[in-house]
Amino acid sequence: MFKSILAAFDGSEGSEAALRKAIELANLCGADLTVLTLYRHHSVLEGSMYVTDVEQPDNIDGIMRNHAKKIAEHGATVARQAGCEKIRAFVKGGPTARTIVSFSKQHENDLVVLGSRGLGSIEGYLLGSVSHKVTSLSECPVLVV
Amino acid sequence: MFKSILAAFDGSEGSEAALRKAIELANLCGADLTVLTLYRHHSVLEGSMYVTDVEQPDNIDGIMRNHAKKIAEHGATVARQAGCEKIRAFVKGGPTARTIVSFSKQHENDLVVLGSRGLGSIEGYLLGSVSHKVTSLSECPVLVV
Repeated sequence: MFKSILAAFDGSEGSEAALRKAIELANLCGADLTVLTLYRHHSVLEGSMYVTDVEQPDNIDGIMRNHAKKIAEHGATVARQAGCEKIRAFVKGGPTARTIVSFSKQHENDLVVLGSRGLGSIEGYLLGSVSHKVTSLSECPVLVV
Repeated sequence: MFKSILAAFDGSEGSEAALRKAIELANLCGADLTVLTLYRHHSVLEGSMYVTDVEQPDNIDGIMRNHAKKIAEHGATVARQAGCEKIRAFVKGGPTARTIVSFSKQHENDLVVLGSRGLGSIEGYLLGSVSHKVTSLSECPVLVV
């Protein structure tokens, strides 16, 4: 019934539970699965990041991106180990909910799966508001795990 | 993967789209499907209901319940026609989101499916806030269609 599933994955326990549901559904439907990990652009975070990384402010986007990449790769590994065959992993910078929604629209996903709340390891805020925004803005069904 | 699916159904176009996804998933997983239609108790609505039905204020709960029953039966018929075998329909009075969540917990549903917003034909308010509340409060995954 679903052909192309997008799992938003931030490495938190909640988003891994969501990823596992997405994998089960992808396997059941023979759907392709995309793991998407978001990071916030430097400009959004500059206030706090300058404090923690004053030596290399120009490289903050790169650091965030690399961290997100590792998380996305972990998500893809989890999916492969669970028998998922058609899997891709992406990282994207931008505001979380809107980026998930625009990515899913662009890639014609017919289901978005995400955790009800994350640890906010990347975004620094509760994913709860993200799931609310995504369910409000998404043009396709959203599974909140 | 899902064994017992609860579809919240208020007769609106959005909730019928949600019901159809719930049916597809139930058929795919061999899950049982419960159609749940909510009505609000008299006391919650008395302000507006006395205006529209001054002649029989004591019977308002009954009227609401019967209306909800017809909607639930329509939902069950849609499901049966779509090949769903294990189907039950319920009506419940109470605050919508909390009643959906407590019902799903009591009946050990492992997925709740609902529309992102309804026409509010029964509740008189946008179902949008209901889906937010249900995703926040539910102990099981929630599919917002």
